[in-house]
Amino acid sequence: MASKLILSSPNSLLLQNPNLQHHNHHLLLKPATNMASFPNLTNKVKALTIKCAATTATPLSQSQDLEERVFNFAAGPATLPEKVLKKAQSELYNWHGSGMSVMEMSHRGKEFLSIIQKAEADLRALLNISEDYAVLFLQGGATTQFAAIPLNLVKPEDSVDYVVTGSWGDKAFKEAQKYSKPKVIWSGKSEKYTKIPSFDSLEQTPDSKYLHICANETIHGVEFKDYPDPKNGILVADMSSNFCSKPVDVSKFGVIYAGAQKNVGPSGVTIVIIRKDLIGNAQGITPVMLDYKIHAENNSLYNTPPCFGIYMCGLVFDDLLAQGGLKEVEKKNKKKGDLLYNAIDESKGFYRCPVDKSVRSLMNVPFTLEKSELEAEFIKEAAKEKMIQLKGHRSVGGMRASIYNAMPLAGVEKLVAFMKDFQARHA
Amino acid sequence: MASKLILSSPNSLLLQNPNLQHHNHHLLLKPATNMASFPNLTNKVKALTIKCAATTATPLSQSQDLEERVFNFAAGPATLPEKVLKKAQSELYNWHGSGMSVMEMSHRGKEFLSIIQKAEADLRALLNISEDYAVLFLQGGATTQFAAIPLNLVKPEDSVDYVVTGSWGDKAFKEAQKYSKPKVIWSGKSEKYTKIPSFDSLEQTPDSKYLHICANETIHGVEFKDYPDPKNGILVADMSSNFCSKPVDVSKFGVIYAGAQKNVGPSGVTIVIIRKDLIGNAQGITPVMLDYKIHAENNSLYNTPPCFGIYMCGLVFDDLLAQGGLKEVEKKNKKKGDLLYNAIDESKGFYRCPVDKSVRSLMNVPFTLEKSELEAEFIKEAAKEKMIQLKGHRSVGGMRASIYNAMPLAGVEKLVAFMKDFQARHA
Repeated sequence: MASKLILSSPNSLLLQNPNLQHHNHHLLLKPATNMASFPNLTNKVKALTIKCAATTATPLSQSQDLEERVFNFAAGPATLPEKVLKKAQSELYNWHGSGMSVMEMSHRGKEFLSIIQKAEADLRALLNISEDYAVLFLQGGATTQFAAIPLNLVKPEDSVDYVVTGSWGDKAFKEAQKYSKPKVIWSGKSEKYTKIPSFDSLEQTPDSKYLHICANETIHGVEFKDYPDPKNGILVADMSSNFCSKPVDVSKFGVIYAGAQKNVGPSGVTIVIIRKDLIGNAQGITPVMLDYKIHAENNSLYNTPPCFGIYMCGLVFDDLLAQGGLKEVEKKNKKKGDLLYNAIDESKGFYRCPVDKSVRSLMNVPFTLEKSELEAEFIKEAAKEKMIQLKGHRSVGGMRASIYNAMPLAGVEKLVAFMKDFQARHA
Repeated sequence: MASKLILSSPNSLLLQNPNLQHHNHHLLLKPATNMASFPNLTNKVKALTIKCAATTATPLSQSQDLEERVFNFAAGPATLPEKVLKKAQSELYNWHGSGMSVMEMSHRGKEFLSIIQKAEADLRALLNISEDYAVLFLQGGATTQFAAIPLNLVKPEDSVDYVVTGSWGDKAFKEAQKYSKPKVIWSGKSEKYTKIPSFDSLEQTPDSKYLHICANETIHGVEFKDYPDPKNGILVADMSSNFCSKPVDVSKFGVIYAGAQKNVGPSGVTIVIIRKDLIGNAQGITPVMLDYKIHAENNSLYNTPPCFGIYMCGLVFDDLLAQGGLKEVEKKNKKKGDLLYNAIDESKGFYRCPVDKSVRSLMNVPFTLEKSELEAEFIKEAAKEKMIQLKGHRSVGGMRASIYNAMPLAGVEKLVAFMKDFQARHA
């Protein structure tokens, strides 16, 4: 909150707030009142430290915002990079001098076209996506894709395989029953979704058209560390909750799809990356909005896309590139994950993570307390310390810390310190 | 841009910018440097007018924003109320002291629940929607509803009727062919979509399950002024482009649906208002995300909804209520529409609107120039005057001024003045 008032020239004061670099103000004194009129001041005011406080209760001044930000461990929608939010805020009313908010722009105007084209180009750069693949910005979440995948890729009588490592894979399988003959070739359900099978052991259906996986199960915290090569058909992955958290060899996949609201943006945008030769075979009953061909031919502009959400994704992509790309992002995620899993493993059983160590998610860390009666207290105390949304999914209970790309290391450090303190008080 | 630096107490300066009330700063001087140390200054600085300029090129200061705003006549996404944008901007980084952006909130957290519940309550108040109707906040635009309507309401062999008064009604009819036996019982195509039939003349299919209309055709500027009572089945309306522009008797309809991006928010939100007894009959092939029952049972939270878009709609609903509700809004829209249509009709044929006077849209005003070779020049000159997106839809050409709720009267006045000036120079 400390601001500096600096005499930057004989007729100019600079009001500088280190938290608000783009709100620095040059105060140009009128000739009649320039600093030469104040000889005593001229010498003394050069770096006068002053306190700066907003005069009205709402909205909160931005300096207060910075202090009051919580660490948000929600599974999605989830925390976004502070820089990205600040940029979005600064541009919200008037994007790049266009005289409009991004929310007001025609999706066919040159301004929005530049936004969506840059978003696509940056995503292609991040994931090294070749021109053999189309990149689509759609609506409806991964749940819509659960239907779109079989509707676009196969015929109703076709066999398709599902490896079910958690609730989301199971939902995808069930939806596919409406449009194909799906088979669950492996399920982790009997072991409460804590494992991923060895790929060699998988027996695929001989004429299966695709193998579907959920790359990271948000609820159960189970993450594929490498990917199977299907013996039959293509590999299709729901990457909603680990999309852009690490490098991925896109060429191994027929289709990758992801809701944006974990790592790359707000809810309301779904990204589909699909090999172009797979496009154009939709079943006759496919709603036009679920037909990849329609969207690919129209560069995601067949109907009005979720423009502001796409813009936000673009800001995040830009930020990820500025961080050095996904290799660097993965390093940071590993560091955060190690810190948290080590704290759990070194707690002598006070905290427990049920997931097999080899497939623990770097994005969603589920854990329980040995003394389960303390879990509500844990969540409540953490919230008081401004660490929120640590409650596990209602279907599994316990706690869950979602530590996506935008969760700062400081957030995990604070959580770990809190966990140690809580243990010391309750062990 | 002029700010004032006011000596508000012996140890406090107030930096006041009239354009930026919530950026007023109290500058609290440290004891060692309080104003008593500057006797010369104490007398002279009481109301020192100073200039205040941001030190970095981006973001634009908010006072610059106000000066540079354009009048945006885009058909959607479209102009939003300035107040709403300012509020969204001020809250973007930290919503109501929650320490989070709305974009970061769990859709199941108490903060977002309060947002979506208020949005629904305010919409119910605006349109006087009874408890017999469900209000759903969905994704995918009206185009997704073109499929969802027949999928949810009828069986594949059922007859349904479509009155086609423009391109959107035609698209709805075509999509319905996948899931029902639709019949176009009237089409305005041969007259280039400039009319709406008298309802008495409509011959409905005897066993038709519903009658579908597009309440306002965005491209052709044709708007229903009252609504038919179907002899058979229920009335279903796509109200995307005149939703909340005037009062509507919801009880006349089985289903009303609307993309938000014309009158009530950004793109990415679709609102469905459906009589509850019609819910629960979806065809077996209906994707789960297109099944009204799923969304109604889960209060639009079956999967992650487009949270920020819903929040923006809520701000708009709040603003519409604050304006006095839809009767007041309709008065303003009539005034704007009359002004523009009168300018066209009084131009002695220099400007022409092809639409039958009785059904001219108050939202989308298409017009042409008698000298069609001047149209490009008209659009270009208007854009220079900061009136943008006046080009007609690529399928019909000419000009189109979309003057939704949020287009200020001043925007229409400026357009009309420009039209008269343009005519004077080119007649």
